[in-house]
Amino acid sequence: MTASRTAFEDRLREIGRQRYHDKHPFHHLLHSGGCTADQVRAWVINRFYYQASIPMKDAAFMSRVEDPALRRAWRSRIEDHDGTDAQDGGIERWLRLADAVGLDRDYVASKDGVLPATRFAVDAYVRFVRDKSLLEAVAASLTELFAPKIHAARIEGLLANYAFANERSLSYFKNRLVEAPKDVAFGLSWVLDYADTAEKQDAAAAALIFKTDVLWAQLDALHAAYVEPARRPPGAWDPGTYLRAHAAKAS
Amino acid sequence: MTASRTAFEDRLREIGRQRYHDKHPFHHLLHSGGCTADQVRAWVINRFYYQASIPMKDAAFMSRVEDPALRRAWRSRIEDHDGTDAQDGGIERWLRLADAVGLDRDYVASKDGVLPATRFAVDAYVRFVRDKSLLEAVAASLTELFAPKIHAARIEGLLANYAFANERSLSYFKNRLVEAPKDVAFGLSWVLDYADTAEKQDAAAAALIFKTDVLWAQLDALHAAYVEPARRPPGAWDPGTYLRAHAAKAS
Repeated sequence: MTASRTAFEDRLREIGRQRYHDKHPFHHLLHSGGCTADQVRAWVINRFYYQASIPMKDAAFMSRVEDPALRRAWRSRIEDHDGTDAQDGGIERWLRLADAVGLDRDYVASKDGVLPATRFAVDAYVRFVRDKSLLEAVAASLTELFAPKIHAARIEGLLANYAFANERSLSYFKNRLVEAPKDVAFGLSWVLDYADTAEKQDAAAAALIFKTDVLWAQLDALHAAYVEPARRPPGAWDPGTYLRAHAAKAS
Repeated sequence: MTASRTAFEDRLREIGRQRYHDKHPFHHLLHSGGCTADQVRAWVINRFYYQASIPMKDAAFMSRVEDPALRRAWRSRIEDHDGTDAQDGGIERWLRLADAVGLDRDYVASKDGVLPATRFAVDAYVRFVRDKSLLEAVAASLTELFAPKIHAARIEGLLANYAFANERSLSYFKNRLVEAPKDVAFGLSWVLDYADTAEKQDAAAAALIFKTDVLWAQLDALHAAYVEPARRPPGAWDPGTYLRAHAAKAS
């Protein structure tokens, strides 16, 4: 059954509450000041791969949009990341963060040393947007719904806990506080308009879940490589749950 | 400079010695009997996603091959995995292993509960074969050069250490002992023939490294989710190495 606009929006927001990477322990560690300098650097190096790929993702999306109005509405995302004559973009601002944490920005920009798992996850997102329906591509971008909260917490946590944090080094996040709500207001309204059947609503919800997996997998890889212990992402096979479900099935 | 055929083959084999997933601690744990039943199950569930994707990868390759002789030589790979009227394929044999470790084969075949990181890595391989040159696609398959050794060790280790292991449950690996050398003899000779410039040799070597990353990332994700602690895959940013390299650069 097709859910109402409000109920469908609630369903999407619930996905964020359950699965967005603000729940990942790496973020708690980072924001609370618990990361070593090298753990922060590993995050900066790996997350750069995501930043650098986002405008390619947006170009892949626009390459499939026939409606000039939709392309126009989307285009500012690329400008926000790549910059304009008048203003640096998000990629340059991320490299300022790399400077501030004591990394060679050329090394970071080279993408050497990025975890293969980071590449696999981020590339999966770019290809998802290239291959899936426009509705699924826009729905996947709706993790931006949940971003301002984590960016605000990050700015506060980094400023309180790390010497490298200041207005300049954190300018990426400050800008996203303005850019993300603008982008997501458009994207959410588009998805709510276009997902007008139960099937489309399911596809949009699955796309948003996919995107939360992309974000979560990046932190999992980072955590496993540079922090530590056994954790599994939301939705992965859980021995206890499986046993209960299959015991119930057998009885 | 273009390396000789022998020197280039050595270069490819050295990649296996450095980076093949027989070096991953999860395999040591598995083969030595150190895995719990649930850790074996998690491996069976996740590795099924790889098994199930391989014939799609091979079909993607064949869809781009214009030479009927090369397609004919490649076709047995799909038969080996999907089976023929006369013989079960590798996917069915993997499901026998799922039965033997006490999993519901329908659950395993559904691919529910597969780690997102497994999907991202395996899908990256299918897409690599779809998008890159034929030479790179064949070169990526050359991890089969290193497979018979690990399959032999696995059969021996599983038989010695786990009650579920017997001729039937391990038939997947026994068959691969015969299939992999046949496939790889063809693939290796093809790559040695076609990589006739330094640039092509570099591309083939990079493709093989990519494939070792695909395999390693799957075990890393498994290890992080179901076993434990901080490890990073070969080639990932290493704080100590980075520091030494950049200190040398600065001085």
